[in-house]
Amino acid sequence: MREETIAPTSTGSLIAADRVEGTAVYNRGGDHLGSIKTVMIDKPSGKVAYAVMSFGGFLGIGEKYHPLPWGMLTYHRGQGGYVVDLDKGALEGAPQYDAAETPNYEDQAWGKQVHDYYRVPPYWM
Amino acid sequence: MREETIAPTSTGSLIAADRVEGTAVYNRGGDHLGSIKTVMIDKPSGKVAYAVMSFGGFLGIGEKYHPLPWGMLTYHRGQGGYVVDLDKGALEGAPQYDAAETPNYEDQAWGKQVHDYYRVPPYWM
Repeated sequence: MREETIAPTSTGSLIAADRVEGTAVYNRGGDHLGSIKTVMIDKPSGKVAYAVMSFGGFLGIGEKYHPLPWGMLTYHRGQGGYVVDLDKGALEGAPQYDAAETPNYEDQAWGKQVHDYYRVPPYWM
Repeated sequence: MREETIAPTSTGSLIAADRVEGTAVYNRGGDHLGSIKTVMIDKPSGKVAYAVMSFGGFLGIGEKYHPLPWGMLTYHRGQGGYVVDLDKGALEGAPQYDAAETPNYEDQAWGKQVHDYYRVPPYWM
């Protein structure tokens, strides 16, 4: 099995955001964690800041959103989705919000605690 | 009127790709050029390489896609869409393709001529 950091419809390192959206996310144990709702782009730098993973709920009710630093995602062809190094317990304690309480993504203090949780440097560094 | 480089649903510099998708694109003269179909992300660097603008066609037939270097887009609140500095003639001669002939986005020679056309440095520089 080939493991790559690319999406299924890509032939190399470039992927279309509308293909990332809807792609399943698993952990290394093969548990299905959710799927990518969208990606957040930092307009001035042109960098992708987060992939927003949605989990649970039905028709948007009860759905939880987890902002994941973009670099955490690795596409696994065999799995047909992204794999992140995150067990279910770590995910339960991770920064998350529901549709009614979208956080201020601009707030660097908020962004910093998301990145700190996953122990990766912030996108603005 | 305030002019900003952000999208309508954003409170600052971060925008969701699924909000960028579908947003109208105008030139400085106010001509409607098309709408954003998706954005292309360079996975390793986490940088947005292109916004793909679609134009014309019906249900995907006859539709043309123009890859626009991401930095060309400026969101104008008053216009309710992105504005690019591009007259209709320049757009006609610009790199484009239709759905049946998706280019190899990985090909740096192809990417270079897109960026050269718009006189902006490539995203990989």
